Amino acid sequence: MQRIVYINGEYVPESEAKVSIFDRGFLFSDAVYEVTAVLDGKLIDNAGHLARLERSCAELELTLPVSGDQLTEIQRELIKRNGLTEGGIYLQLSRGNAGDRDFAFPENTAPTLVLFSQARALIDCPKAAKGMKVISIPDIRWKRRDIKTVGLLAPCLAKQAALAAGASDAWLIEEGYVTEGSSNNAYIVTEQGKIITRPLSNDILHGITRASLLQLAEDAQLEVEERNFTIEEAYAAKEAFVSSATTFVWPVIEIDGQAIGEGKPGPIAQKLREIYIKVAQAAAV
Amino acid sequence: MQRIVYINGEYVPESEAKVSIFDRGFLFSDAVYEVTAVLDGKLIDNAGHLARLERSCAELELTLPVSGDQLTEIQRELIKRNGLTEGGIYLQLSRGNAGDRDFAFPENTAPTLVLFSQARALIDCPKAAKGMKVISIPDIRWKRRDIKTVGLLAPCLAKQAALAAGASDAWLIEEGYVTEGSSNNAYIVTEQGKIITRPLSNDILHGITRASLLQLAEDAQLEVEERNFTIEEAYAAKEAFVSSATTFVWPVIEIDGQAIGEGKPGPIAQKLREIYIKVAQAAAV
Repeated sequence: MQRIVYINGEYVPESEAKVSIFDRGFLFSDAVYEVTAVLDGKLIDNAGHLARLERSCAELELTLPVSGDQLTEIQRELIKRNGLTEGGIYLQLSRGNAGDRDFAFPENTAPTLVLFSQARALIDCPKAAKGMKVISIPDIRWKRRDIKTVGLLAPCLAKQAALAAGASDAWLIEEGYVTEGSSNNAYIVTEQGKIITRPLSNDILHGITRASLLQLAEDAQLEVEERNFTIEEAYAAKEAFVSSATTFVWPVIEIDGQAIGEGKPGPIAQKLREIYIKVAQAAAV
Repeated sequence: MQRIVYINGEYVPESEAKVSIFDRGFLFSDAVYEVTAVLDGKLIDNAGHLARLERSCAELELTLPVSGDQLTEIQRELIKRNGLTEGGIYLQLSRGNAGDRDFAFPENTAPTLVLFSQARALIDCPKAAKGMKVISIPDIRWKRRDIKTVGLLAPCLAKQAALAAGASDAWLIEEGYVTEGSSNNAYIVTEQGKIITRPLSNDILHGITRASLLQLAEDAQLEVEERNFTIEEAYAAKEAFVSSATTFVWPVIEIDGQAIGEGKPGPIAQKLREIYIKVAQAAAV
């Protein structure tokens, strides 16, 4: 059975959801996106995702054709129509079809809004239980990683490099420091139990799950320091983990073939995952 | 009257040319492209463009579904069906529709091949005659600018910044040196009449017009030096210009509000443009 997806005001079977070849999302990666997790058929941390979407739009002079409340209605309608209990809702806004190809932003062009659901086990998932292996590679992405655009070829290549090396993901290195994972924020835990993660800037995505996690860590009286860290520090860390909208928290048990800590999921990553899921489920809408 | 465009083996009116929202060109900018100029209904420097397309594909493990000769047949068919005498043929190959969204490259997915024509005056064009104004801005693009991907949001933003500043284009600056223009290679001419342009690397696009021009400059006994140059050197240059597939050579007469040389198109830029057009027309296919 086909998914029902949303495109520009209509709900259609996925095979019918198409955009013009002149859509600027296709020609110029002139588009932004968000992914909101779904648990028990409810949206997780969605207000944060919609706020970040508005920020991405503002940075690129993109105009959302519907309100945040209307977006939430569409997200819920997709959950309902597809019987989604666990997974995510993907949302993409492109600058639309300007009728021809020209680098300059077109005027008075209607944007293209697309949303679709993805069913996936988020709670009961092997990488959460067993942890994941990552490799480190140079961060070759553009300099505005705070804007969540579909210019994702570098992360795709990072993912491919990781898979080719027998790992699940890559941590990206710039000027000696870890920026983040290919599609997640990166953390280490020091010998003293302090959680270290890179501070917000244009160098990394401003993770919605990251923001929630840091608050929860503080509430749980865990020490957090937002500072740059090197891959060598990561090798020597007691624990390592990543966070993102649909992974929540996944422990990292190996980096570049070196076991992290005892080479198994650490207690802080596990605890944060538990707390996050509990709080997020309670607040889900 | 609508253009006839090519998509995956079919020639269709442009309004009917659509791709799935799951096409990786739309979701991940996982696609490469080329633009070949057309003069007198013939393709300019096309062998170079097809060779670069093959290189881009190889770098990304993308497979062209048709041969170079077949591509040329499609290009010619579009010229014929659209009565194109002057302008360009745009070609884009994406990794195609993998049926869902996942960063990892899909296996056994048919790529999406799209070509369309754009009618435009290339010979008799104001910026060629009068020169253009550029501004300089930081180069925020990814690090593999030698691969001609559709991850073009940074160049779009550069173009917007230029237009907002009353200029036509932007020269991009990295670590103090000019890399290139937003969609063209950049050159200056020293007081001694030497043409300076940045050497090939992953930092810039390996311009097909650039390669032809450098050969023609040599043939014309003009001195060429491939080395990095700063924007300050550009301000003080005798001439400045850009090259690309569809501009050929456009003189730059002002950078960041400073007149270059006498503030009008210089003789070397004009001569190179003339020679290039003459030779390219003679070799057009």
